Amino acid sequence: MDIAVLGTGMVGQALAGGLTRIGHAVVVGTRDPDATLARTDPDGMGNPPFATWHAEHTDVALATYADAAAGADLVVLAGNGAAALDMLAAAGADHLAGKVLIDISNPLDFSAGFPPSLFVKDTDSLGERIQAAFPETKVVKSLNTLTASLMVDPAQLPEGTTVFVSGDDARAKATVSDILTALGHTDVIDLGGIESARGTEMLLPLWLRTMGALGTGMFNIKVVR
Amino acid sequence: MDIAVLGTGMVGQALAGGLTRIGHAVVVGTRDPDATLARTDPDGMGNPPFATWHAEHTDVALATYADAAAGADLVVLAGNGAAALDMLAAAGADHLAGKVLIDISNPLDFSAGFPPSLFVKDTDSLGERIQAAFPETKVVKSLNTLTASLMVDPAQLPEGTTVFVSGDDARAKATVSDILTALGHTDVIDLGGIESARGTEMLLPLWLRTMGALGTGMFNIKVVR
Repeated sequence: MDIAVLGTGMVGQALAGGLTRIGHAVVVGTRDPDATLARTDPDGMGNPPFATWHAEHTDVALATYADAAAGADLVVLAGNGAAALDMLAAAGADHLAGKVLIDISNPLDFSAGFPPSLFVKDTDSLGERIQAAFPETKVVKSLNTLTASLMVDPAQLPEGTTVFVSGDDARAKATVSDILTALGHTDVIDLGGIESARGTEMLLPLWLRTMGALGTGMFNIKVVR
Repeated sequence: MDIAVLGTGMVGQALAGGLTRIGHAVVVGTRDPDATLARTDPDGMGNPPFATWHAEHTDVALATYADAAAGADLVVLAGNGAAALDMLAAAGADHLAGKVLIDISNPLDFSAGFPPSLFVKDTDSLGERIQAAFPETKVVKSLNTLTASLMVDPAQLPEGTTVFVSGDDARAKATVSDILTALGHTDVIDLGGIESARGTEMLLPLWLRTMGALGTGMFNIKVVR
């Protein structure tokens, strides 16, 4: 499948690498490809610049949001939540229409420091806002409940864990579940319509505090039943 | 230890039974003991009335909130979130002062139907409100992330799972962790101060939708790392 990954940060890099590994042709989308490749400083978290990663992943192309989305069968939103709607607008509603969009974003608000609060929650969700803004796109919220490295390689943990899908289109969720399985996920729970993204987005406050307690983000929840 | 369990519903019954099983002397607190024993109708969820449960648990005493709390070394708040502060006011700040309070309540708002929203979240929590209202009590939020039956008998699940403690007093959290271990819990994560109750309370939207997807509340999360 031709897949566009929108976002060049840790989540975008992880998804681009993971989806390439399982046989997809990936184009990473960014606002300005030349500017992205010209950056030589680490990001705010101390991660290396995109160009460093890209030099080791020459099979992944880099394009504008619009060009990446235009050529894709499926689009992955791998940017931060505050930028999500702007990134998709730049990709273009026409280029997203009729396609599956895997939304990994979380509505984190860092304006008051760490841990962040959520800028939408409880009676609405970022997943729903994206679906409402792009009604012809089949939005599936998924993978927003674990760290980037484990999204694409969950076998780094000592046992199988759980990921979730939320969305209004059953076939789109089946497509995403197949991708999750190919990435190594062994338990995918279908929570229901896109409004169930409220559940996974509201896990973040517990996820962030658990990361603080454990001193690592290399964990995931398993729903034991 | 002499323990007061405030609340006569499913959570109160489960905790009273479980704490008795591991050797504690339990008094259940209610607003009006005679009225509680006189009720013969099932509750709103179809569960049998307290009197039916009590007839099979004659080693558990029933008293007013105030009398139960007055005689206890440790108090368990096992009522619904909307009633939590009123129940504790009825128990009496003097009777709670200096004691450990295990707060199991969740701030669920059913006014718009199911699934409920949360009447406090994200930048505040019910645990914090309780701690602020009863500053001389050592509030420990715990066990609000799984169904009543599993709170006191997690070995019903096929493998060990995770529970959390949040609170400002390290000794109080150690006391609660010892009780959790005696009940059969094998993984207790200390999330930090009482403000970390925001994390576990905000798990409820995901918990409720997972229950819907699985068709059962007999599950719990395990933090795999």
